[in-house]
Amino acid sequence: MLDLYFWPTPNCYKVAILLEELELPYSVKPIHIGKGEQFTDAFIAISPNNKVPALADPNGPDGEPISLFESGAIMTYLADKAGSSLAGDTPRDRAEVNQWLMFQMGSLGPMLGQAHHFRRYAREKIPYAVDRYTDEATRLYRVMDRRLASTPFLAGAYSIADMATYPWIRPHKWQGQSLEDYPHLQRWYSEVRARPAVVRAVEVMRDRLDRNRDVPKGEAWDRLFGKGQLQGEGAKND
Amino acid sequence: MLDLYFWPTPNCYKVAILLEELELPYSVKPIHIGKGEQFTDAFIAISPNNKVPALADPNGPDGEPISLFESGAIMTYLADKAGSSLAGDTPRDRAEVNQWLMFQMGSLGPMLGQAHHFRRYAREKIPYAVDRYTDEATRLYRVMDRRLASTPFLAGAYSIADMATYPWIRPHKWQGQSLEDYPHLQRWYSEVRARPAVVRAVEVMRDRLDRNRDVPKGEAWDRLFGKGQLQGEGAKND
Repeated sequence: MLDLYFWPTPNCYKVAILLEELELPYSVKPIHIGKGEQFTDAFIAISPNNKVPALADPNGPDGEPISLFESGAIMTYLADKAGSSLAGDTPRDRAEVNQWLMFQMGSLGPMLGQAHHFRRYAREKIPYAVDRYTDEATRLYRVMDRRLASTPFLAGAYSIADMATYPWIRPHKWQGQSLEDYPHLQRWYSEVRARPAVVRAVEVMRDRLDRNRDVPKGEAWDRLFGKGQLQGEGAKND
Repeated sequence: MLDLYFWPTPNCYKVAILLEELELPYSVKPIHIGKGEQFTDAFIAISPNNKVPALADPNGPDGEPISLFESGAIMTYLADKAGSSLAGDTPRDRAEVNQWLMFQMGSLGPMLGQAHHFRRYAREKIPYAVDRYTDEATRLYRVMDRRLASTPFLAGAYSIADMATYPWIRPHKWQGQSLEDYPHLQRWYSEVRARPAVVRAVEVMRDRLDRNRDVPKGEAWDRLFGKGQLQGEGAKND
């Protein structure tokens, strides 16, 4: 059985969507990031960057166990493990999927994450930073809208690039965006949201998600956004 | 001949290093990002996120031309095209390389980029943001140092994950970091820097690099960091 180390965050939902699409059985291992469970030695051994998601597969490519971190790497691994074409089939398709997956990993996720931080979580209201990341969100939404004007999905056919992107578009209001301004992206969003596997995935830990939507306070804030990130056991520089 | 759309930025140097390691012939097509050359329709057709680097290969996987954006996707494509094992050989090695490549793409590059912005380029000095990204740089440097205490390179053997990471560690002073605090990372840095292919790659457009080191002003600043990013021809929402 695959173990998915999970907390209801966009990067974790990506992997849940893919597992549901592939119909692979998996067990959810909650890592309560507000309580600092990502800093235990046991978790750092699986996820050296102390982030969720992570995956443990007792039956890796050579029959030996493997553990992986980074949602993008986990998704490529799982799509290939299942023998699916969701990471692309031909070398051309694989390159096409990978570039839109990298766009999500390298630009969309990190920059929308900063928009969430400065619009929602930061302890000071800093107009320069709010503007910077809201403008960048707008720019990125335009890139996707322009792309989706000419293709049904980001890499042509439905792929892990869409599964990686969808959970970051769900909180578009937190990013100062309205989908009505992006008709092609809105069409894509409706189609992805309606997929049965996506519906099932967003139910994973829904009870926790509701609580996760509150802005964290006190020690939880510090572990997520403050010096607490540097003081976790596994984060020591030894 | 491969065309590399290039400006002397860390993400562009990644690809130059790999091309030099693979000894593939390539031609450098300068895209002057301060002058807004990334917003032309011709460039957007290759790089829809209007970022460098991008690659055009007249002889793609199926013999037809292909163009690619996103440095991480370009690197995987080129390593495989050349039949090298630099993106990993076995499925286990590929997953290992890919997770450290994704760590660079999803965490290291974007967060160090924000450190550069708020420590160096931002038009206001914002202590909250300077602290946030300097602390994150420290955290990420510790992750790499811990990893490199037990492996010679990030994914075990030398790979595209190291080539993707090295150009982001070169400006460590801009990130408030001193390599002396990270002995294993420092050992790795010295080894990568001394590789003949890396030496050759950092010479690409060195003449422009020196000018690029000046903090941009006026319209160039606006195109790189301000509303100019939203006003470029290709960035229109149509």
